[in-house]
Order: sequence, then structure tokens, then C-alpha cells
Amino acid sequence: MNDTVSLVLFSGTDDKLTAAATLAAGAAAMGRRVNVFLQFWALDAFRADRIEKDHGVSAEAGPEGAEAMRRMNERGQHWSETFRQAKEIGDIGINACAHSMEMLGLTQDDLDPMVNDVMGIAAFMVQVTGPVVFI
Amino acid sequence: MNDTVSLVLFSGTDDKLTAAATLAAGAAAMGRRVNVFLQFWALDAFRADRIEKDHGVSAEAGPEGAEAMRRMNERGQHWSETFRQAKEIGDIGINACAHSMEMLGLTQDDLDPMVNDVMGIAAFMVQVTGPVVFI
Amino acid sequence: MNDTVSLVLFSGTDDKLTAAATLAAGAAAMGRRVNVFLQFWALDAFRADRIEKDHGVSAEAGPEGAEAMRRMNERGQHWSETFRQAKEIGDIGINACAHSMEMLGLTQDDLDPMVNDVMGIAAFMVQVTGPVVFI
Repeated sequence: MNDTVSLVLFSGTDDKLTAAATLAAGAAAMGRRVNVFLQFWALDAFRADRIEKDHGVSAEAGPEGAEAMRRMNERGQHWSETFRQAKEIGDIGINACAHSMEMLGLTQDDLDPMVNDVMGIAAFMVQVTGPVVFI
Repeated sequence: MNDTVSLVLFSGTDDKLTAAATLAAGAAAMGRRVNVFLQFWALDAFRADRIEKDHGVSAEAGPEGAEAMRRMNERGQHWSETFRQAKEIGDIGINACAHSMEMLGLTQDDLDPMVNDVMGIAAFMVQVTGPVVFI
Repeated sequence: MNDTVSLVLFSGTDDKLTAAATLAAGAAAMGRRVNVFLQFWALDAFRADRIEKDHGVSAEAGPEGAEAMRRMNERGQHWSETFRQAKEIGDIGINACAHSMEMLGLTQDDLDPMVNDVMGIAAFMVQVTGPVVFI
């Protein structure tokens, strides 16, 4: 029985990262192992100096959607905090894509401490045995 | 043998919803159980008063892509009708994410009748045993 | 044991296609069978006369992201070349969605030769037994 869920995070907007954090926390709460792999703009959003800043929303959200998102963030918790709490209660690994690190000119010191390590795509694919969600 | 396909619908543009409806109908036609979970802008697109309106296309489509999409919609059927027909012939459940309902200030009466219920992410994750597609 | 990975490519921007090519190559390098299904704007990007042109980046990338992507493309290889090499070393099938072919008014002669065939969604779903990644 395969209970691992892999999340490849590509997008770095607050709406998609909120959806990703919710899926990760939900899967972890069900006792599933969660592998998170950060690429491109999602990796950029996990930079220590930016993670709690405003990362915008998807282009399709429009002003009405952006406003609904902003109100939700005031009432609820930020997606970075959802990831942090989920890591404390569940079995979640968060790794950065080596290729994207190079593209963005980053070292691991530039990233939020909740990121465990930097790895290549092959090392990530070895872990992938269950569903893969690309966000 | 795991035949269930889970679709997490996040985007609310007509091109992505058409792709989602096609995947759902294709999976159902192959005899697979399909779990659809509506979040964020996809949930907004399932509002009873908006479902058949123009929801735009992805930013990347450009004017040429938008025109190709418009012509296809004139010749073919709307994605909402594809979902409706797929529900009639196959085993498809469509549920709304409780968190997104709250963000958008919606109650189930605001949604198209093909939406079965409102549920939390944990209840959705319990059903997830096969592939998960995030659109 | 299910080792097949299915990639449904919807987006046609260079950042997402680079992520897709990397996943396909990584999975193939691990000895997994990879099924690629081209829809909508990703299919458009595989047109023989456009595949190596500039396809832009996601709206969220911004000018800074677009510049990072451009520099990476100068140093590294284009995503189309990553797909080509991965097909040579691994077990990768690339097929075009019949529905999207019709929408874009294309025949197989319009596509890059690495596209194996045109197929409907039901034929694609038959092959789907492992994870499905929608990009």
C-alpha cells in the first residue's frame, strides 16, 4: 500500500502556495508521508527574506479574487505557517531542486530553514512511488 | 488495483476547465471512479449564476488562443455540459472545498446542482488512493 | 509495481515546458515508462515551425524571472532537446490530443517529428496506471 504523496511546487503565487500547503497538511494529517520538491517560482517564494512577503495571486484571480485572498490571509494563517506546522506534526520533507537553485543563483543559506536539502531531479524521482501533484 | 482518479480543480478559466472535464469524462468512460474537489477560482466558476458565462482563458493563450477556444466552444459543448453528462454515465463525485467556500463567502445554494457536497481537505484526502491531478 | 508516469502537458510557456522536460528525463533515467499527452497551448508549442522559438514564461515570473530563465537557456539546453535526448535513452511516448489538434486546426505534419501519434483521451486514459502530472 503506497501512502506517499509527492508535491512538485512550481508556482510562487500566494493562492497556489495556500492550496499546496493545505494539501500537504491534509495528507500529513492522514498519516501520509509527503515529499515536497521546490522548483522555479515556488523556490523563489521560499527565500528566507521573501517567504512572508506578498507573492501576488494567479493572473486569473482578478481584483475580486485578490481581495478575497487578502481577507482570508488576515483571518487565517499564512501558507508558510501551515507548512511549518504540518512539518512538526507529520512526516514532510521539503527539498529544493538543484537546477532551479542554479537558475536563481541561490545557495541553501538563502532559503527558509524549513527547507531540508537541495537535490537533483533523479534523487527526487527515486522517492516518487505514489501520486505526484504539480502545482 | 486502484482505479480511482482524483481531480483537484484550482483554476477557473475555460481552457483549463475544458481540459479537466475531458479528463474526468475520459476516466469515467474507462470505468474509473472520479473524485473532483473544487477550490479557489474553479469553485467560483461553478457558481450557479456564472457557470455558463465566459470565464476567460489562461494568460498565456493570447488573442489567437482565445479565438481558437471561442470557435471550439461554438462547435462543441461547454465544459459544464461535459461534466454533467459524465456524471450521468459514470461514477463521478464533485465536492467543494470548505475552506474555499468560506474564502469566497459562498453557501451550497450558490453552486450548480451538480456539486454534491462541501467537504474539508482531510475528508477529501481519505478518498485519494490513486493518481491526483491538480489543474 | 507500477512504474509508469503520465504527463499531461497543457501549458506552452518555456518555464513550464522546461519543468516538464526535466521530470520526463528524470523519470526515464530511473527506468520508468513515461507517457506524454499534449493538449492546448503545450501542443501549440510542439509545432515544427515554433518549437525552438521563444514561448514566453508564466505571467507570475515577472521581468526578473524571465531574465533568469533567458540566462539559463543560454547556458543549458532547450527543453525540446531535453525531450529528444530523453526519448533516445528512455521509454517515452509523446502523443497529441485529437481534440486539441482539431481546436488548433493542426495535422500531424505540422508537429515536431518527436511526436509519435495523435490519440483521443480514452486511448490515453487506458495507459494511465501510475501517477498523472498535469503541467
